Amino acid sequence: MGYFDSASSAPLHPVARQALQASLDEGWADPARLYREGRRARLLLDAAREAAAEAVGCRADELVFTSSGTRAVHSGVAGVLAGRRRVGRHLIVSAVEHSSVLHAADAHEAGGGSVTQVAVDRAGAVNAGAYAAALRPDTALACLQSANHEVGTEQPVAEVAAVCQEAGVPLLVDAAQSLGWGPVEGAWSVLTGSAHKWGGPSGVGLLVVRKGVRFAAQGPSDERESGRAAGFENIPAIVAAAASLRAVRAEAAQEALRLRELTERIRARVPRVVPDVEVVGDPVRRLPGIVTFSCLYVDGEALLHELDRAGFSVSSGSSCTSSTLTPSHVLKAMGVLSEGNVRVSLPFGTPAEDVERFLEVLPGAVAGVREKLGAPVTETVVRDDVLVVDSLGKLCPIPVIELAKVIGEVPVGGLVRVLADDDAARLDIPAWCEMRGQEYVGEEPAEKGTAYLVRRVS
Amino acid sequence: MGYFDSASSAPLHPVARQALQASLDEGWADPARLYREGRRARLLLDAAREAAAEAVGCRADELVFTSSGTRAVHSGVAGVLAGRRRVGRHLIVSAVEHSSVLHAADAHEAGGGSVTQVAVDRAGAVNAGAYAAALRPDTALACLQSANHEVGTEQPVAEVAAVCQEAGVPLLVDAAQSLGWGPVEGAWSVLTGSAHKWGGPSGVGLLVVRKGVRFAAQGPSDERESGRAAGFENIPAIVAAAASLRAVRAEAAQEALRLRELTERIRARVPRVVPDVEVVGDPVRRLPGIVTFSCLYVDGEALLHELDRAGFSVSSGSSCTSSTLTPSHVLKAMGVLSEGNVRVSLPFGTPAEDVERFLEVLPGAVAGVREKLGAPVTETVVRDDVLVVDSLGKLCPIPVIELAKVIGEVPVGGLVRVLADDDAARLDIPAWCEMRGQEYVGEEPAEKGTAYLVRRVS
Repeated sequence: MGYFDSASSAPLHPVARQALQASLDEGWADPARLYREGRRARLLLDAAREAAAEAVGCRADELVFTSSGTRAVHSGVAGVLAGRRRVGRHLIVSAVEHSSVLHAADAHEAGGGSVTQVAVDRAGAVNAGAYAAALRPDTALACLQSANHEVGTEQPVAEVAAVCQEAGVPLLVDAAQSLGWGPVEGAWSVLTGSAHKWGGPSGVGLLVVRKGVRFAAQGPSDERESGRAAGFENIPAIVAAAASLRAVRAEAAQEALRLRELTERIRARVPRVVPDVEVVGDPVRRLPGIVTFSCLYVDGEALLHELDRAGFSVSSGSSCTSSTLTPSHVLKAMGVLSEGNVRVSLPFGTPAEDVERFLEVLPGAVAGVREKLGAPVTETVVRDDVLVVDSLGKLCPIPVIELAKVIGEVPVGGLVRVLADDDAARLDIPAWCEMRGQEYVGEEPAEKGTAYLVRRVS
Repeated sequence: MGYFDSASSAPLHPVARQALQASLDEGWADPARLYREGRRARLLLDAAREAAAEAVGCRADELVFTSSGTRAVHSGVAGVLAGRRRVGRHLIVSAVEHSSVLHAADAHEAGGGSVTQVAVDRAGAVNAGAYAAALRPDTALACLQSANHEVGTEQPVAEVAAVCQEAGVPLLVDAAQSLGWGPVEGAWSVLTGSAHKWGGPSGVGLLVVRKGVRFAAQGPSDERESGRAAGFENIPAIVAAAASLRAVRAEAAQEALRLRELTERIRARVPRVVPDVEVVGDPVRRLPGIVTFSCLYVDGEALLHELDRAGFSVSSGSSCTSSTLTPSHVLKAMGVLSEGNVRVSLPFGTPAEDVERFLEVLPGAVAGVREKLGAPVTETVVRDDVLVVDSLGKLCPIPVIELAKVIGEVPVGGLVRVLADDDAARLDIPAWCEMRGQEYVGEEPAEKGTAYLVRRVS
C-alpha cells in the first residue's frame, strides 16, 4: 500500500487522533458560556491557539481557527481587500497559486477589482523583481504561496515580503504545503494553513493576521474567533490540529532529510527507468516530500488507474483527471509538459521500501498505457513541403504521439502541421519540442481547430 | 452534574463518537480523487448524505454539508437572495430568529437590500397572516425558524410555507433546534441544521435547497459540495453527524414524551417555589426539552453563577451575560420580562433526579441573588402626586426593584416616575406592570436618561 498523495490530504497523525479522542469529552460545549463545561472548552481553545501561534511564529491574538484552509484563504483575501479598499482594488497573485487563492482573485475581479498574475520560471518559482514590477499605488494585497502544491518548488517568500513591505503592501502567504515543515520566514502580513495537510484532522484551517494590518471581515457578522471565522468552534478538531502541528514539527528536521533522500531517488531514477520523461520543479529549492514528472505519450488518468491497481495512490495535473483546474494551471504557467503527469507526495513516515516498489512498478505501468495508446497516425498528407497530421477530435496525448511518429518523415528543415482541437495540445506540443530539441514555430487558426507548426531541426 | 444547555450545544452522542472514531481511518482522503483512499472517502460521504437526506425528508442531491449551522444559514440566505435578485431585494425574517439569520439580514440590508421583521405574540410565535401581510412583489426570500432557541416555542412553519408558496416566494427554515426531533413539515424551500445541536460533532451543518429553487452560491467558487460549501470535506465528522441524527431520531418519540414531562414539571413548579417568576414561551406548542423563565429582581449573570456553583449549567437571555445579543432580542420581541432570565434545555437522556435536584436548588439560588441586590431605594421624591425614583446609573434589575419597593407608597391612581438610563428598563418595567397588574403609562425623555411612568392600579 503506497499512499503518495499527502499534498492532497495526509492520514491522521497518531497524536492528532489521541488529542481528538481526549478532547471529545471536554471540548463540545460553547466556549462563550460561563459555566464549567464552557470554561473547560475555552481553556482547550486558548491552549490550542497558544500552541498553534508558537508554531507559526505569531501572537495568539493574531491567529484564528477557520473551518478549512480554503476558508482561511477566502476570508483572508477578502478581509484585507476590504480593509484596504481606500488604497485601491489591485491584487497581485502568482500564476501558480492554489485554486483557493485564484478563485478568490476571480471573485475580486468579478466584483470590479483588478488582478495581476505574476509569471513563474520553468521551475515554477517567481522572483521578487516580478512582484516589485507588479506593485502599483493602488495595490491592496499581494499573495504568494510558501511552496507549490503540485511541483514542490519553494518560493522566495522573504524576498517578496521585503519588496512588498517597502511598498507598504501586505503579503498573504498560503503556507498550506509547508507549515508542517517549519515557520514561514520573512515579513509576511497574513498567513493561512490547513491542518489536514500536516496530519491534523479535516475541518481546521488557520488564518493569521499580523497586528497593524487593516482587516475588515466580510460576510454576516459573528462574534466568534475575533469576528473572522463564523460558526461554532470545532474545539476537539482544533486541539488535534494544534497538537499534531507540534508533533510533526518535532520530527520535521529529521524527516525532511529522510524524505528528501527518497524523492531524490525518484528524481534521479525515473528518467533512467522510464523513457521520455520530464521531471519538473526546482531540483534544490523544493519541499522534501514532493516530486513531479510528466511522461510523454501517456494519458494521466489511465496511468493513475494503473498505479492504483498496483497499490499506489498519486495525483496528476494532467487533464481528464478529477482535479480542480484541468489541465493543471501550474504546469501550464511553468511551460512544461502536462501529459502523463504524476505527482508523488510522500506522507511523514513513508518507508523506503514503498518508494523502491513504486520505482519497480512505474516503468511497466507507463509502458502499458503507452502500448494501449499506440494508435497509428490516421491520416498524413504531404502538402508542398509540409506534412499535415489530422488529430482533430482526438484527446491528449494522441496529438503528440502522432507528431512524434511522423517527425522523422519530413527532412530536416521541413514542417509538420498538427491539426488539433484539444486545448492541451497548446501546452504539450511546445513542451515536446523543448524536450526533443525541435523548433516550435507557432500556432494558427485552422478551418477546424488549431494548426500547430513544428520544424524538424535534428 | 446537570448540564442543561443542550440548546447551545449537546454532548456528543455515543453513536456519534463511535462513527467518528470508525471513520477516522477511512475518511481522511480527498473524495474527489480516484484512487482507493479517495473512493473509500467518497463512499462514506455519499452514504452519510443519503442518511441525512432521509432524516430531513429530501433528495440526497438537494443536501450539502457545511462547516456549521451558521455557515449553512449564511450561505443559504445569500444564495437564494442572489439567485432571485431579479425578483427583488426584499427579505422577510421573524423578530425571534437565531442571530445567524438576523446577522445575514443585517448584511443584506447593509448591501442595499430591505428587510421586514415579522413580530411575534407574547408566546414567541408568529402567525401566517403576518407573513402574508409582509410579502411584497419584490420579496426574494422569507425565513422562519422551526422552533425558537430561547423559549422553545414552535412556529407554524407549514402554514407560513403555504402562504409563501402561494406567493411564489421560497421559505428558508432554520431547523437547528428541532431537527433531532423530527423532519420539518410543510412546503419549505430551503432548510438548515447544525449537528452539534442533536449530539453530533461540531463542525457540521446541513444546507438543503429544494430542486427548482433559484440559488446562486456566493463567494469564491469551489467545486466541493455542489459549489455550495467551500473547503475540504470533514468526512469523519459528517459520518458521525449523519449516524447520530439517525440514532436520536430512533429514540425521539419516546424521549420527547419523557423530556416534555420533565420540562412540564419545571413549568408548573418553578412559579410555586420561586416568588415573582414569569415562565415564558408557548405552554403547548413547544419543543420537549426547553423551558424558560424570568425572575424579577434578579441579575441573570449572578444567578447563572450561583447555579453553576450548585452544579447546573444553564444559559440566560438577560443582559450582562456572554450571549450574542444582550438583552435577548427574543424576550424583547415577545414583550416579556428579561431580567433574571434562565433557559433550561435538557439534553437527551437527562435523568429525572437531576431535574428534581435543580428544583430543590433553584429557590435558594434566586433568594441569595435577591438578597445581595436588596439595596434600599436611594432617593424618592414626591412631586405633586408623582413619586420619582432616581435609578440613573443603575443597571438592570435595580430599577425594577426600586419601582417595586415604592409602588405601595403612592395611592391607587397615583403615578411612579422611574428615571433610568439602562435600556433593559424599557423592556422590564412594562413586563413587571403586566405581571403585577399595574398600568404602564409610557415613557418620555428626561433631563438625564428616560422616565418610565407607572400608575398604581391595585
